[in-house]
Amino acid sequence: MSHNTFGHLFRVTTWGESHGPALGCVVDGCPAGIPISAEEIQHWLDLRKPGTSKLVTQRKEADAVKILSGVFEDDRTNGQVTTGTPISLMIENTDQRSKDYGDIRDKYRPGHADYAYDAKYGVRDYRGGGRSSARETAARVAAAGIARKVLGADITIRGALVQIGNKKLDRSKWDWNETTKNPLWCPDANTAAEWTDYLESIRKAGSSVGAVIEIVASGVPAGWGAPIYSKLDSDLAMAMMTINAVKGVEIGAGFESAALTGEENADQMRIGENGPEFLSNNNGGVLGGISTGQDIVVRIALKPTSSILTERKSIDKHGNEVDIRTIGRHDPCVAIRGVPVAEAMMACVLADHKLRHRGQMGGV
Amino acid sequence: MSHNTFGHLFRVTTWGESHGPALGCVVDGCPAGIPISAEEIQHWLDLRKPGTSKLVTQRKEADAVKILSGVFEDDRTNGQVTTGTPISLMIENTDQRSKDYGDIRDKYRPGHADYAYDAKYGVRDYRGGGRSSARETAARVAAAGIARKVLGADITIRGALVQIGNKKLDRSKWDWNETTKNPLWCPDANTAAEWTDYLESIRKAGSSVGAVIEIVASGVPAGWGAPIYSKLDSDLAMAMMTINAVKGVEIGAGFESAALTGEENADQMRIGENGPEFLSNNNGGVLGGISTGQDIVVRIALKPTSSILTERKSIDKHGNEVDIRTIGRHDPCVAIRGVPVAEAMMACVLADHKLRHRGQMGGV
Amino acid sequence: MSHNTFGHLFRVTTWGESHGPALGCVVDGCPAGIPISAEEIQHWLDLRKPGTSKLVTQRKEADAVKILSGVFEDDRTNGQVTTGTPISLMIENTDQRSKDYGDIRDKYRPGHADYAYDAKYGVRDYRGGGRSSARETAARVAAAGIARKVLGADITIRGALVQIGNKKLDRSKWDWNETTKNPLWCPDANTAAEWTDYLESIRKAGSSVGAVIEIVASGVPAGWGAPIYSKLDSDLAMAMMTINAVKGVEIGAGFESAALTGEENADQMRIGENGPEFLSNNNGGVLGGISTGQDIVVRIALKPTSSILTERKSIDKHGNEVDIRTIGRHDPCVAIRGVPVAEAMMACVLADHKLRHRGQMGGV
Amino acid sequence: MSHNTFGHLFRVTTWGESHGPALGCVVDGCPAGIPISAEEIQHWLDLRKPGTSKLVTQRKEADAVKILSGVFEDDRTNGQVTTGTPISLMIENTDQRSKDYGDIRDKYRPGHADYAYDAKYGVRDYRGGGRSSARETAARVAAAGIARKVLGADITIRGALVQIGNKKLDRSKWDWNETTKNPLWCPDANTAAEWTDYLESIRKAGSSVGAVIEIVASGVPAGWGAPIYSKLDSDLAMAMMTINAVKGVEIGAGFESAALTGEENADQMRIGENGPEFLSNNNGGVLGGISTGQDIVVRIALKPTSSILTERKSIDKHGNEVDIRTIGRHDPCVAIRGVPVAEAMMACVLADHKLRHRGQMGGV
Repeated sequence: MSHNTFGHLFRVTTWGESHGPALGCVVDGCPAGIPISAEEIQHWLDLRKPGTSKLVTQRKEADAVKILSGVFEDDRTNGQVTTGTPISLMIENTDQRSKDYGDIRDKYRPGHADYAYDAKYGVRDYRGGGRSSARETAARVAAAGIARKVLGADITIRGALVQIGNKKLDRSKWDWNETTKNPLWCPDANTAAEWTDYLESIRKAGSSVGAVIEIVASGVPAGWGAPIYSKLDSDLAMAMMTINAVKGVEIGAGFESAALTGEENADQMRIGENGPEFLSNNNGGVLGGISTGQDIVVRIALKPTSSILTERKSIDKHGNEVDIRTIGRHDPCVAIRGVPVAEAMMACVLADHKLRHRGQMGGV
Repeated sequence: MSHNTFGHLFRVTTWGESHGPALGCVVDGCPAGIPISAEEIQHWLDLRKPGTSKLVTQRKEADAVKILSGVFEDDRTNGQVTTGTPISLMIENTDQRSKDYGDIRDKYRPGHADYAYDAKYGVRDYRGGGRSSARETAARVAAAGIARKVLGADITIRGALVQIGNKKLDRSKWDWNETTKNPLWCPDANTAAEWTDYLESIRKAGSSVGAVIEIVASGVPAGWGAPIYSKLDSDLAMAMMTINAVKGVEIGAGFESAALTGEENADQMRIGENGPEFLSNNNGGVLGGISTGQDIVVRIALKPTSSILTERKSIDKHGNEVDIRTIGRHDPCVAIRGVPVAEAMMACVLADHKLRHRGQMGGV
Repeated sequence: MSHNTFGHLFRVTTWGESHGPALGCVVDGCPAGIPISAEEIQHWLDLRKPGTSKLVTQRKEADAVKILSGVFEDDRTNGQVTTGTPISLMIENTDQRSKDYGDIRDKYRPGHADYAYDAKYGVRDYRGGGRSSARETAARVAAAGIARKVLGADITIRGALVQIGNKKLDRSKWDWNETTKNPLWCPDANTAAEWTDYLESIRKAGSSVGAVIEIVASGVPAGWGAPIYSKLDSDLAMAMMTINAVKGVEIGAGFESAALTGEENADQMRIGENGPEFLSNNNGGVLGGISTGQDIVVRIALKPTSSILTERKSIDKHGNEVDIRTIGRHDPCVAIRGVPVAEAMMACVLADHKLRHRGQMGGV
Repeated sequence: MSHNTFGHLFRVTTWGESHGPALGCVVDGCPAGIPISAEEIQHWLDLRKPGTSKLVTQRKEADAVKILSGVFEDDRTNGQVTTGTPISLMIENTDQRSKDYGDIRDKYRPGHADYAYDAKYGVRDYRGGGRSSARETAARVAAAGIARKVLGADITIRGALVQIGNKKLDRSKWDWNETTKNPLWCPDANTAAEWTDYLESIRKAGSSVGAVIEIVASGVPAGWGAPIYSKLDSDLAMAMMTINAVKGVEIGAGFESAALTGEENADQMRIGENGPEFLSNNNGGVLGGISTGQDIVVRIALKPTSSILTERKSIDKHGNEVDIRTIGRHDPCVAIRGVPVAEAMMACVLADHKLRHRGQMGGV
């Protein structure tokens, strides 16, 4: 992992600022011969796109992706396939209201990266947070469109919101089919309706709220991952923690496992119809950093959007105390649009480990 | 990060199995001219050493570290300093009761990495978990002895147990001085006594329990870290999740931030006597992946030790169903000896970012 | 180094095919606050640009570079500076005569990468060599425009052609000022005239010829570089060997040193007016992988352009034997446009080592 | 590549100084299940061992290797196999006559890394060159013992001395069987006798001489390697240039290709009995950075040993001018013992690319 690049064999480098001319990524290490089109990638970007409901930022971005390299016509399929060379994806920014930000040019917005960036670099693109904006995550979602193709159809990656503010989902009502039917990625229709009202009130108050997302990967075979410093779960923890606003990551029983006894926690095993099976999944599909064949289950906590209408105390770069409220187009709960981003990171990490596993196993 | 190596400029590679002849690490990238002795490193190892109380494994290991390379006499100090070349540290294993493990040669212990390793590699050193044993963490603690010297005296890294089983510390009683006075790293003497009784009962029952550790780094200046995929917090999340038994990582308010509003969460700022100061630390000292100058606060959840006396259901490598109980010398709460390990990972990540920050800043 | 990325702290990732819509690079790790403009980068690209004389390919490319990210207005200078975030540079392809290549769609051009790419990937962009085209080097020259700013004005990097075909330069006539006055980067005007006639005859015959380039970096202080596997000279050897058509790299006396005795070869030292000085430079400014403060002197051998008019024996992807001659717009001596590319690689490697050196030295 | 580590999937980290207690390496990323013993590794070390003839240093080192981790008994073979975890190899130093070096404690030996190391680090282990000693290469040869097992029996890597001083081998007399019959790795018995006399006179005069080594890998299938910055030849150039005393690297026709025309240079192809075949191998088995299935042919130039008896001018660390002659046990031609080292680097680079190729190819 290096600044703006992640992955070892399936490597993603992203670039771009919130209000620059464009943003994008270079995906390096993708195997050759995989059919891929801009439309397939666009599908995933559309799920993350702003402006799709009242509950997310009203910034209007087509988020139209262009493939600039790394693909070519393929005789065998009459379509376009990857060539093994780096795939450059670009998304042009179209709705950059930079003037919204002139007011915060010298002021540090509490909860944002403004102060930290200035402390590090001494200069920053203040428009919309510049590089630290969640807009950067569009490039990840695009890259993951390719990662999913590397993983193939047997591996499914799905995400859901399981908590918003202090309202937790009743897990007994979980229905994956619901998650794509409501704008909140909620796995239950009634809960979704309730959360929508709640979030609407938050939005009207100019406030914001945090949330918890759960991401589940199914179909990953046993044996992916690597000890010790590139464990499947440590790579996932890293990947998830790079997402804007994420303050916690857990796998399987996560923080709950602190309260368990060894008897309760250890996932027992038996031989089932299709081979070895586990009687529970407290470990979240990973043991010793290596996949077990069970679902890989990760949860992340996201803090509330720091851009709120209520005035907060802060300082400016000249050392003056100021009060600041953030006007502009923002998400009352940044976690909503975080779901496809978290799915994307899961997909990229798994694609990387698929290739790494293949490289290091097999006869010599 | 690559399998058995972590860090970018301050790089640590560890090697060794639980019951092999030795274990160790190579620390590469340490600046030259830093006074260091085996005794200083030994100090930290002794804090992690097994057999120091009834509440940890009774395995007897001197854990005596040898410096095999990378240091040399220094004219100016009449002592031994780093030379800028790789520092090889070795700890010989002395108390390897391999015969304890003959029984589990072909059986997969629930909650352990046995099944996953076999799924990946088809062969494994079953003695004490081999490479997946927490014994590997001795090498990290040794490496961190050097990392602490790179960080210098202005940066303090301390850890404490804040929850054991379902018993949480009353944070109002926090006294850092207590953490080194009781074997549980508990920041309150009364709580420590209570936890000791509790843990003793767990131990006698042949059971185990999970816990939560908090690590705090003080004195880190604002500006360390790097966007986007090598954030200070994503590197810490990765590092912590590589520690055996860790199932969750959070920074600052962590999972609690999901329930906060934007007003509650954003850490406001004012100008204090010593410059900019924050009125709270929900962000745990990191914003946008970059340090703010506040304390860096990380918590990790560790699952209960999987090695317990109670019989659990499992299978063996031949596909037979078996019942298994783990005899041997184990920690009733692996988190206790996890505290110095978590401190070590914090120290190594910070040392790496100190060097990286220095490399990329300053005039050209 | 990883497929399409090089550098450790100053990292360059390039993308793009010869006849795709665009090519470019992402420069990650550049320190913040460095004034940079597209015009400055364009200056270096123009020196490499095709179509500038009869002796290079007649392909017409403006090679106009756009900066898509990583820079922002700076209050202090009223200009544009780097922000420490990734700098994305893009060059759109404008003169892609893809139809020139339909003929070689299935045929492997001798000396080109066609066969090897097909053996590896099973699919390739055959137009102009796709990713294996020297057109990729435009992105390196652009990146080096930034690297030169990181190095600062005290470090000069210059290149010259010292042999073309079997015609070697008389080194006693070396005049650096001449290298930019003739299209052959020749350090002597008379020799340049002679070589021009020679090359013109080669061009008219539809043939091609190889050459040797020498690159010299002046002003590099003693102490840059790193043992053992990231030596200044091993990083340079790697970097130079990645340039299309390069088949040999040497430093200082290079292959000549095989014939020297220890007495002749060892560069003796004395104390001069400005401190330590060497009485010769057989080592080319590097000892033990670390700079000595002398000029860093590297030479590379480039093979003749493989695209020639004379018919050569080959095969096609279907296993048929074919005869093939390459029509199109090509360089009779690809080494000419290789000079700015080799300078670029020297600049990028040195910028990386400058940052690395700074990261790992200094007090702690 | 990072300081003391090389390789991407098959990674080698070396450590140790010439006169420290030991030296060694950690090999990470080796696939599991490969039978390996210390004896097999020792075989290769013995070929590099000092003191085996008058023509190499008289230092007496058993160079006995120990495997400290990463291997375990295997049920299926009743032998010891790799487990996929890091393999730690250690060689203890036994014949360290440090007192030989007291004299050069503060003096910089011309041609050695002494001055450069002091300029970088300000402190160095002066005994025998410390980390910059060729003794470090023992660790590479040990690591390559494992790399060769990863490559398997189908791939042969052989090296020979093709020039010593100004005496070049008549290539028409090349007989690979001779290379292991004489201590000079010379492919012709008569030439070996002649060179031995020559080298004996050099040794008696207290002088030294340079040489050229050729390394050939046979059996590498077409398709290994990777564009653009991890080409098979750029990785080889890097690897070879890290060997002590190497000042030049070339592949195939190398520097000779500068003098060739396109017609002469391009390796034509035909369909042979076993598929595609080349009519020449000017490209040395690599096109576009990817293997072609032909022999991979690399040559390296090594400068003469800098340690000679003749007095040379130098300075010391206090800025005094001194005259210095090197007493001690040295190789009159360091290139002789460089042959197994160069073979080792070829083996490690190829093993790495074998794993990388496997990781990124195949269906998804």
